[in-house]
Amino acid sequence: MKKNKKIVSKKAGLPPGALVHVGLVRSEEVHLSVIDYNVEQFSQKKVNSVQELFPLKDTPTVSWINVDGLHDTALIAELCTHFEIDPLVVEDILNTKHRPKVEEWENCMFATLQMKGISEENNGIVSEQISFLLGKNWLITFQEQQGDLFDHLRENIEAGRGLARKKGPDYLFYRLLDNIVDNYFFVSDFISETAEELEERVLKEVNETLLLEIQGQKRILLNFKRTILPVREITIQLQKDNMKFIKSGTVKYIKDVHEHMIQIIDATDAQRETIYSIMDLYHSGVSNRMNQVMKVLTIISTIFIPLSFFAGIYGMNFDHIPELHWDHGYAMLWVLMLSIVVIQLWYFRRKKWL
Amino acid sequence: MKKNKKIVSKKAGLPPGALVHVGLVRSEEVHLSVIDYNVEQFSQKKVNSVQELFPLKDTPTVSWINVDGLHDTALIAELCTHFEIDPLVVEDILNTKHRPKVEEWENCMFATLQMKGISEENNGIVSEQISFLLGKNWLITFQEQQGDLFDHLRENIEAGRGLARKKGPDYLFYRLLDNIVDNYFFVSDFISETAEELEERVLKEVNETLLLEIQGQKRILLNFKRTILPVREITIQLQKDNMKFIKSGTVKYIKDVHEHMIQIIDATDAQRETIYSIMDLYHSGVSNRMNQVMKVLTIISTIFIPLSFFAGIYGMNFDHIPELHWDHGYAMLWVLMLSIVVIQLWYFRRKKWL
Amino acid sequence: MKKNKKIVSKKAGLPPGALVHVGLVRSEEVHLSVIDYNVEQFSQKKVNSVQELFPLKDTPTVSWINVDGLHDTALIAELCTHFEIDPLVVEDILNTKHRPKVEEWENCMFATLQMKGISEENNGIVSEQISFLLGKNWLITFQEQQGDLFDHLRENIEAGRGLARKKGPDYLFYRLLDNIVDNYFFVSDFISETAEELEERVLKEVNETLLLEIQGQKRILLNFKRTILPVREITIQLQKDNMKFIKSGTVKYIKDVHEHMIQIIDATDAQRETIYSIMDLYHSGVSNRMNQVMKVLTIISTIFIPLSFFAGIYGMNFDHIPELHWDHGYAMLWVLMLSIVVIQLWYFRRKKWL
Amino acid sequence: MKKNKKIVSKKAGLPPGALVHVGLVRSEEVHLSVIDYNVEQFSQKKVNSVQELFPLKDTPTVSWINVDGLHDTALIAELCTHFEIDPLVVEDILNTKHRPKVEEWENCMFATLQMKGISEENNGIVSEQISFLLGKNWLITFQEQQGDLFDHLRENIEAGRGLARKKGPDYLFYRLLDNIVDNYFFVSDFISETAEELEERVLKEVNETLLLEIQGQKRILLNFKRTILPVREITIQLQKDNMKFIKSGTVKYIKDVHEHMIQIIDATDAQRETIYSIMDLYHSGVSNRMNQVMKVLTIISTIFIPLSFFAGIYGMNFDHIPELHWDHGYAMLWVLMLSIVVIQLWYFRRKKWL
Amino acid sequence: MKKNKKIVSKKAGLPPGALVHVGLVRSEEVHLSVIDYNVEQFSQKKVNSVQELFPLKDTPTVSWINVDGLHDTALIAELCTHFEIDPLVVEDILNTKHRPKVEEWENCMFATLQMKGISEENNGIVSEQISFLLGKNWLITFQEQQGDLFDHLRENIEAGRGLARKKGPDYLFYRLLDNIVDNYFFVSDFISETAEELEERVLKEVNETLLLEIQGQKRILLNFKRTILPVREITIQLQKDNMKFIKSGTVKYIKDVHEHMIQIIDATDAQRETIYSIMDLYHSGVSNRMNQVMKVLTIISTIFIPLSFFAGIYGMNFDHIPELHWDHGYAMLWVLMLSIVVIQLWYFRRKKWL
Repeated sequence: MKKNKKIVSKKAGLPPGALVHVGLVRSEEVHLSVIDYNVEQFSQKKVNSVQELFPLKDTPTVSWINVDGLHDTALIAELCTHFEIDPLVVEDILNTKHRPKVEEWENCMFATLQMKGISEENNGIVSEQISFLLGKNWLITFQEQQGDLFDHLRENIEAGRGLARKKGPDYLFYRLLDNIVDNYFFVSDFISETAEELEERVLKEVNETLLLEIQGQKRILLNFKRTILPVREITIQLQKDNMKFIKSGTVKYIKDVHEHMIQIIDATDAQRETIYSIMDLYHSGVSNRMNQVMKVLTIISTIFIPLSFFAGIYGMNFDHIPELHWDHGYAMLWVLMLSIVVIQLWYFRRKKWL
Repeated sequence: MKKNKKIVSKKAGLPPGALVHVGLVRSEEVHLSVIDYNVEQFSQKKVNSVQELFPLKDTPTVSWINVDGLHDTALIAELCTHFEIDPLVVEDILNTKHRPKVEEWENCMFATLQMKGISEENNGIVSEQISFLLGKNWLITFQEQQGDLFDHLRENIEAGRGLARKKGPDYLFYRLLDNIVDNYFFVSDFISETAEELEERVLKEVNETLLLEIQGQKRILLNFKRTILPVREITIQLQKDNMKFIKSGTVKYIKDVHEHMIQIIDATDAQRETIYSIMDLYHSGVSNRMNQVMKVLTIISTIFIPLSFFAGIYGMNFDHIPELHWDHGYAMLWVLMLSIVVIQLWYFRRKKWL
Repeated sequence: MKKNKKIVSKKAGLPPGALVHVGLVRSEEVHLSVIDYNVEQFSQKKVNSVQELFPLKDTPTVSWINVDGLHDTALIAELCTHFEIDPLVVEDILNTKHRPKVEEWENCMFATLQMKGISEENNGIVSEQISFLLGKNWLITFQEQQGDLFDHLRENIEAGRGLARKKGPDYLFYRLLDNIVDNYFFVSDFISETAEELEERVLKEVNETLLLEIQGQKRILLNFKRTILPVREITIQLQKDNMKFIKSGTVKYIKDVHEHMIQIIDATDAQRETIYSIMDLYHSGVSNRMNQVMKVLTIISTIFIPLSFFAGIYGMNFDHIPELHWDHGYAMLWVLMLSIVVIQLWYFRRKKWL
Repeated sequence: MKKNKKIVSKKAGLPPGALVHVGLVRSEEVHLSVIDYNVEQFSQKKVNSVQELFPLKDTPTVSWINVDGLHDTALIAELCTHFEIDPLVVEDILNTKHRPKVEEWENCMFATLQMKGISEENNGIVSEQISFLLGKNWLITFQEQQGDLFDHLRENIEAGRGLARKKGPDYLFYRLLDNIVDNYFFVSDFISETAEELEERVLKEVNETLLLEIQGQKRILLNFKRTILPVREITIQLQKDNMKFIKSGTVKYIKDVHEHMIQIIDATDAQRETIYSIMDLYHSGVSNRMNQVMKVLTIISTIFIPLSFFAGIYGMNFDHIPELHWDHGYAMLWVLMLSIVVIQLWYFRRKKWL
Repeated sequence: MKKNKKIVSKKAGLPPGALVHVGLVRSEEVHLSVIDYNVEQFSQKKVNSVQELFPLKDTPTVSWINVDGLHDTALIAELCTHFEIDPLVVEDILNTKHRPKVEEWENCMFATLQMKGISEENNGIVSEQISFLLGKNWLITFQEQQGDLFDHLRENIEAGRGLARKKGPDYLFYRLLDNIVDNYFFVSDFISETAEELEERVLKEVNETLLLEIQGQKRILLNFKRTILPVREITIQLQKDNMKFIKSGTVKYIKDVHEHMIQIIDATDAQRETIYSIMDLYHSGVSNRMNQVMKVLTIISTIFIPLSFFAGIYGMNFDHIPELHWDHGYAMLWVLMLSIVVIQLWYFRRKKWL
């Protein structure tokens, strides 16, 4: 949390629209690529200079421009200036810590949110910001680094599977959004699995490391929820009638995505309950272990304390202790002490302390 | 939770309306049956091919088509295509993990929710998804497997009891919904009974297994509540004036179902309180048991520690310990020690530690 | 809770409007009585057959028909049929576990709620359902058993005290409602008193029985709140302009009742806080008692353990232990041991452990 | 709480508008006083009979009638009848436990709330109900007893300071309200001070009396909040446009009072957090003290138990225990035992248990 | 908290608009300065008398008048009178404890809020109130003391960087607000850092001082949140269409600030969770430490108690204890005792108590 804020603070005091890249510089270069299609034709290519993209603004075909890397602010400013994007929007694109939101401008719709996925390398959840600029017949996406969730979708469009080729850029935007939300499901799965694992472990061991892990898990869950809650606001807003850049035929698909969002948020609520149950199990395990220790102490103490007392009695040096001179005094004492032990063990067992 | 999500994840990346059956393949074959009636006539039959159902779309009689089993997606797609159902709806029908909802389309109303019941076999709560397609004079229901809650209702319709024969498919839909909600009551009863049983047990025994059972019960309750809360949203929506496929005369019956839903949700809230009370009793029981153990330790220790001290004193080897040579020294010590025991017991009893 | 639901479950699967009495059969017979009045005249009588009541539907005088006992469903059905009451309403009247509500129908207003009172016999809170049918110039009340809260009101009407004789059946309805809400105050008092009693006891004793009583009290309070919360909804709805059967002049009285409801609900919130404070006191008392026990153990152990050590030392059989042969060795040891005891007691007192 | 309710219960079963004084009879006699003023003139006098007040209803000057004492219901009824006040309002004036509210009637606005102050005598918070009747050019206030917060205001009006003499009775009403709310600040201060004092004490001592005081403080705070929350509703309502008896020019002053109310309520929320922190400190202090006791026990036990063991060893009567016959056996044992003590003390210090 | 209230209480009983400075007198003198600019020209100067500022009211250039210090109420009253500010507003300007708010008046918009920053001197968060009066072509700011966050902004305006010179006073107001909100980010960072530090410490040490620090941190966080929550209300209100003094072109900038506010508030929520996690860690640490102590006690006791028992047995003085006369009796006893120790250690290790 702290680090994000620090990065954001880079911008304090600057005039609005001042273009500062807020985020880690992840890739060496900014990569541009474009997919251009309609029902009849399809082309996909890497682009080296921004200028090559300029004609796409006015072609009737659907153009999906993808920008990987956000640190070359000049390049992005040039692209956005040509597409007549407000400087405030460009500022938001470059701020990779922005709260997910959607807003309409005169000539485009702007949306920004976090993609989430499971990384096998860091063995955890990875985040990457994606911003959308949806225009009349173009869609520009900005991602922090190369490699994304959309390869399968690109193949589908190329092969002409599904409706994408017959529909406009708003449908393409929906498909991207749908993909991102589907990946939220994977993350939600991952969180559930980790929680289950923690639940199993908490029944076996109880130590402070585990408590830290449980709280770490809680924090991951809360962060995840905080990231996706505004996405639900986005899907709600996109369903409204007055969205200029979403055609009315696309709204039913958006609604579908919205229902998925609700399901994921429901799931995070359930996971929250699970985490709290695990915490309760942890604390219960701690006090349980304590009870075990107490019981052993009690039993050993209560068995030996009376026995030692008798040993003490017959260690005394009184002139006249008749028992000491009995023939079988020593043996009888052993019998007495064994009886005491047996009675105590029976009592403890009856009390279910053993 | 995790498993459900995993199943859902099968769909990630596919275009919308791609027909994938999300759920367990429970029955061998998909079974089709149809009940066709109006005031004068009634017929009920099993159907082997989808095509036989096609004419029912336009007959003036009320036709209730029931589909058991969802894994034959081709068959369901064929049926839905004939009845002009939107592919997004068919997708939702096949997804047995869908959140309960109702929505209106141009030529039908779609509703999906979970039926809940008590299974004597698994000794627990069983769930099955049911989806409704309510058209002008037909109602299609999709269930996951054969066997349902509606046999009694079928008999009533055949015998002409109640109003069903005189009313349209919306009334039939209400009757099915009413049956499902009535079964929620049974589940709510079952949860209450289990909670009571747990409450009785928690007063007798306190161990980690019980804590797990209590938390399991809490989870069952929360799951149940999560399933039925959206059903209340459904009944609210169905009462609205603008529902095309619900005749105004049926609204008062829907309202009745709605009140039942509120009553069940009230009951789950009460059960939640009960579960938290049981948890509190559990934790109180744990610390109570600990106190018992502590008390026994205290009493035995505090009785014998002073006694052992006196035994130690007279076991010393000082040259001059006058008491050792008194005539009744040994007996007097016993008297002293017994006095100490009596005084302590009296003190403990006064303090109510015994 | 469980039992109520079981009774409700009797109805599962029946067609709507099927008249089943849900509740305990409390009285032997159904009793009918009628009070008929206007400004000039007043009559009160017991009635044996339903038919005698039929003419009252159209007389201009205010007729208050009271039905005690709900198990004779045929009789009630006959009465309601004559007064043209919808079967769904009759079903609700017979279901004594219904959630409080008010609803308008074409020819009457229907309201149902729970009367609450203190019973000296069972030493607790008793409940009884009352349903109202408010027509143009008649009011029908249905109660579960004979004997009610309204005798004082009946006398007032007969004597012509207050405004009742000058006003219509809606004012009579208000007076009945007011009486019921006033009795909620008594119940609220009773709960407060029991809570205070528990608070006093929790400072004296701490055992599991008391915890169960506190939780029982919490449950009573929550049940009470659950019963009366919907009554506030009723009073809100009754204040709305569009209530056909409540004259505009009566609304200000209803508002008065509504304010009482808010005051009672405020009080239950305060009582809830009290219950939680008592729980906190209980748990604090448990750990306090534990501390007491621990302290005694500590003090006795720490006093005697060092003493016993010295006794042990001089019980050793070394050839050369010079102290053993000192002239006043034994006495000096006693002085040493007493010094240790005094120092320890002083230390414990300084630490406020004594 | 309980007592208040009991007093309210006096009214149960009476017809509405039945005039019963609900509250303690605090003063011997009902005192009437009147202040009459406009820009030019000012008069202030005590009045003995209600009839003297009647002409003030129609004079163009602003008349502030103040009634101290509510037990003479006949007198109040006579006054209100002349000023054409609805009996329901009079009932509310006499009920000193009424929830704060404001409502408009045809010929006046009625408001009732609680004045709060610090009493040096009982060393706590005192409450007194005040009711307002605001008419066209008169304001009647009803207080429970003589002596109030408004002496300073009376002087200001007499001296012509501020705007009061130039404005109507609604401005006078605002000034009274403002004074009352200012006194809420004093009470809020007092609560904060008491909380701070408790916080200091909880760090020093931990006993059940303190816990009771903390809970008492919590209850005082909750009561205070419960009293003032409806006052915020009053100030909200008074700002609405449609208030007949509040001139539009006065609304900005009311808004000022409203902001003070919000600030006080914010403060009570902060105090609530403080109380919970104090509770947490208390519980933490209890377990801390327990730990201290445990540590002492542990240290003394673990030091002496091994020592006593060695003493026991060399108290045995075996024929051949070589150590017993060593020349410096006894001294060497002491060296051994001292070493054990030193090692243990070092270990405990390293573990920070000492 | 308490002190603030006390200061506020200075005003109780005074007429509205009575000008009292509520706050600490921080600077010796009130300092006035003015910045006057449009696209072409820029001037900045210190001003000695209020009268010099009067002409600025009607000049077409944008005039930013800044007042440092609030204790010279006469000077501020004179200034405000010339600019025709309502006395109620002036009162709010002088009350440095006022809740943040914005309100429109006929000839200006008034806003007041708290600036927050990190002070290296007191090593904590410092607060200062700032009030804004936004007129047609002037902006007056009131600060408690000299030195502020706006030097960078002043330079930018002078240098003509950004849009400020081309826009009106509403844009200047936005820039100031933006600067203040950016500083909230720094404070939020500081709180996060302190929380992280506490988290690290709580894993190492557990004592009451730390608990007090954690609770202090919680209080700081809650105070911060309480200060900034109303600022979000301000940014919401400023976005509304009907704000007379905010030009429609400035709204998009305000929206940007609003999003920052939401992000900060989201962050404070996350920090709250962190604080509660730290508290949980603290309490867990306390009970963990207790367990450690218990374990050591148990192990030492359970090892030595049986050994001491055997020592006691062979210290007895029975005439016939055969073992005492065995040749290797003493050695065999040592073997027995060592075996007991080994078995116990093995058992404890298996139980993971060691």
